Amino acid sequence: MNSPASTWHMARRAARMNPSVIREILKVTEKPGIISFAGGLPSPKTFPVAEFEAACAKVLKDDPQGALQYAASEGFGPLREQVAAMLPWNVDPSQVLITTGSQQGLDLVAKVLVDADSKILVESPTYLGAVMAFIPMEPNVVSVASDEHGVIMDDLAQKADGARFLYVLPNFQNPTGNTMSEARRAALSALATERGLPLIEDNPYGDLWFDTPPPAPLTARNPEGCIYLGSFSKVLAPGLRLGFVVAPKTVYPKLLQAKQAADLHSPGFNQRMIAEVMKDGFLDRHVPTIRALYKSQRDAMLDALAQHFPDASRQPDQSLTWNTPAGGMFLWARLPKGMNAVDLLPYAVDKGVAFVPGAPFYADHGDERTLRLSFVTPSVEEIHRGVAALAATIKERQGV
Amino acid sequence: MNSPASTWHMARRAARMNPSVIREILKVTEKPGIISFAGGLPSPKTFPVAEFEAACAKVLKDDPQGALQYAASEGFGPLREQVAAMLPWNVDPSQVLITTGSQQGLDLVAKVLVDADSKILVESPTYLGAVMAFIPMEPNVVSVASDEHGVIMDDLAQKADGARFLYVLPNFQNPTGNTMSEARRAALSALATERGLPLIEDNPYGDLWFDTPPPAPLTARNPEGCIYLGSFSKVLAPGLRLGFVVAPKTVYPKLLQAKQAADLHSPGFNQRMIAEVMKDGFLDRHVPTIRALYKSQRDAMLDALAQHFPDASRQPDQSLTWNTPAGGMFLWARLPKGMNAVDLLPYAVDKGVAFVPGAPFYADHGDERTLRLSFVTPSVEEIHRGVAALAATIKERQGV
Repeated sequence: MNSPASTWHMARRAARMNPSVIREILKVTEKPGIISFAGGLPSPKTFPVAEFEAACAKVLKDDPQGALQYAASEGFGPLREQVAAMLPWNVDPSQVLITTGSQQGLDLVAKVLVDADSKILVESPTYLGAVMAFIPMEPNVVSVASDEHGVIMDDLAQKADGARFLYVLPNFQNPTGNTMSEARRAALSALATERGLPLIEDNPYGDLWFDTPPPAPLTARNPEGCIYLGSFSKVLAPGLRLGFVVAPKTVYPKLLQAKQAADLHSPGFNQRMIAEVMKDGFLDRHVPTIRALYKSQRDAMLDALAQHFPDASRQPDQSLTWNTPAGGMFLWARLPKGMNAVDLLPYAVDKGVAFVPGAPFYADHGDERTLRLSFVTPSVEEIHRGVAALAATIKERQGV
Repeated sequence: MNSPASTWHMARRAARMNPSVIREILKVTEKPGIISFAGGLPSPKTFPVAEFEAACAKVLKDDPQGALQYAASEGFGPLREQVAAMLPWNVDPSQVLITTGSQQGLDLVAKVLVDADSKILVESPTYLGAVMAFIPMEPNVVSVASDEHGVIMDDLAQKADGARFLYVLPNFQNPTGNTMSEARRAALSALATERGLPLIEDNPYGDLWFDTPPPAPLTARNPEGCIYLGSFSKVLAPGLRLGFVVAPKTVYPKLLQAKQAADLHSPGFNQRMIAEVMKDGFLDRHVPTIRALYKSQRDAMLDALAQHFPDASRQPDQSLTWNTPAGGMFLWARLPKGMNAVDLLPYAVDKGVAFVPGAPFYADHGDERTLRLSFVTPSVEEIHRGVAALAATIKERQGV
C-alpha cells in the first residue's frame, strides 16, 4: 500500500509556480499606521458607488433571469459593442472577448500561444503578474532591454527570431510609470510587422493620462498582428473583475475556446452592471475626475521628492532619483549608489513608510537600486510625511 | 519579410481545443417554439431575485470600498467559513478556495496536476466540460467503464496505475443523472487509498436530491486524497459565476498560486452578495423549494415516458428506455436498437422537440443510442407535449 504522501503527483509546471515575490516582501509592511507607497490598488475614492447601486437595482429589475442565468462565453453583447466603440481604431464587436480582468486575458494568451520552452519576450522591467500568468505554460521568458521610452529596438531585433510574442505595457507602465514614445511605437510596429512578431499590448492605465493622451496603441497600427488587453479595474472598480481582449480573427476562436474551458463565461450580472453604468457616456464624465485626483497626488509626490532630495540632479549617485510619470499610478525611483531597495525596506518600515523594491519586476537580473512608489492611495499630507520618512531612512543608511 | 499569416504560431495544445461538440449539434435546435429537453440550465424560477436585490444594496451600503477593491486570491473570508461549515465533514476554512464556478476549479486542477501525456481517468460517460477543461494541459484521457452505480471497480483497478487522478461526479451525474451507490463509494474510496489514486470529486448537483440525500461524499471518507469541487450555480444562480474548491494542504498552495496567476481573485462583490444571501440559513429554506420543483418536473417526464412508451420493460430493444434519477436535472434514455441519437435529432426538431445526443459525453467511443433529457426548464404541459413529439419521431423513424 502506498503512503498517502505518494498520492499527489504534481505537474512539472507546479515547481515554477510560486507565491508572488512581492507579496512575500510586502509582509514586512503589514503594520498599523504605515504610510504605504507599496500598493498597486486604485484609490477607492474613484469607485462610482452610487452608479453601481443604481445599476444593480436596474439590472435585477429589468431582466433578472438573463442576468443570473448561464450566458455566452464571448461576453454580454451590449458590453462588447460598448468596448468596440470606445477603442480608437476600427474594432468589430465580434473581436471582443470579455474576461475576468485583463489578468485572465494573459492566462488565455499563454494557453493559446505558449508551448513548453517557447521563447516569449518581455520588457525589462515588466508587470510581474504577466510573467506569473505565462509561467504555467513553461515558457522561456527573455527580457528585452528597455529605457524610459520603451523597449530598445537593437536588442529586440537580436532577440525577435522564433519568439511567440513580445508582451508590452506601453502606457504608464507597471512598475515604472514610463510611456512608450511615438517614435519608439512607430519603430516597434514596423519591426514587429517586418519580422512577423506578434505583440501582446496590455493597457490597463491608458485612460489615466494627466496632461495629454498617450500616442496611439500599437494594436491600432496593425490590428492583425496584435492582441490588445483592456480593463475596467482602473476606470470603474477592480472588485467586479472585468476586462477584455481584442484579438484578430486568426486567434480569436482559440482564445474563446480557452475561455469556455476556463470558466464558461464571465459573470453576466457584472457585465450588465458595467454596461449599465457606462451607457450615456459615463466614462467621459468620470475618468477626468480620476485623472485630476491622480495628477494632484503625483504632483504632491514630485514636490515632496524635490524638497527632500535637493541634490538629485547635481549628484544623482549620492541621491534618490526619480522619473515624472505622465499618467497612471506609479513613479519609479533609484537609490544612491551602493544601496539595495530590498535591504532598505525594513528600515523604511521602521520609520513608517513602505515601497516595493524594483528588482523582482525584472524577469532576469534586476537593478537592485530601483523601487516603485504608488502615489494614488495616500493623502497629500501622508505623501509628504512618507517621503520625509524615506529621506530620513536613506540618509541614515547611507552613513552605515 | 514574412507574410502576416506567418505571424501567429499557435501552441500545440490549441489543436486539441475545439468548440463543444454539443454546442455545434444544438445549433439545429435553435428554432422558435421548440420544446427543449437539451438545455443544461437551472430553472430561472429558482433564482432568489429579491434576496439578491437586498444583498446588492446591503453590500454596497455596508462596505462599498471593500466590495469593489482588489481582494485576496483565496476568497472572501466569511464566505470561505460558510462553505467550510456547510460541508458534511470537518473542513477548515483555510482549505477552501473560492473560484469563478466549479468549472474554474477543473482548470486549476489540470494546471497543477496534469503534464502533457499524463494519464487521467474519467467516468464513461462524463461531464464534457471537465474534459474540455483538462484538454489544454494535453492529458491522455482514459475512460473507466461505468454502470448505473458508478465506475466499475475491476476496470478501474486495471487502469489506475500511474494515473494522476480519477475525475468523478457521484451525485445525479451530468449527463446520466445516475448516483454512485454507497457500496461503490466504499469500494472506490478503499481502492483509491490503497493505490494512492487521487480523486477529483465534482458535486454541483448533490443538494438537489428528491427523496433522500445521496451517500456521503468520497472526500469525506479520505480528505487527504481528494479535491472536492462545489458550486453555487445550481442552488442560487449561475450568473454570478461562483464555486469553490476544497483541497488538502499538500495541494492547496499550488491551486492558490494557479488561481492568482489566472485572474488574481474571484469578484469580491459577488462573493459578498452570496455570503449575505446565505447567512441566517437561507439555503436551508431555499433548496427544498428547488428539490420540490425539480422532483415534480421529473415525475411529469417519467409519467409521459411511461404513457408514450408502454413497451419499455417488455421489449427494451424496440422501445425507448430510461432511468429514474434520484435528483439533479437530467434523465438518461436509450433509443431502440439500430437507431442513432445524432441522426434522430433533426427529425425530432422538425416535430418540435430537442434533446442532447449522448455519444459526445463519452471520452472514447460512445453509445450512439443514448440521449440526455433535461426536465427542469420546460413546464409540465410542455414535458408531455415534448415526450409525445419524441415518441412520434421515434415511431416514424423506426419504420424507415
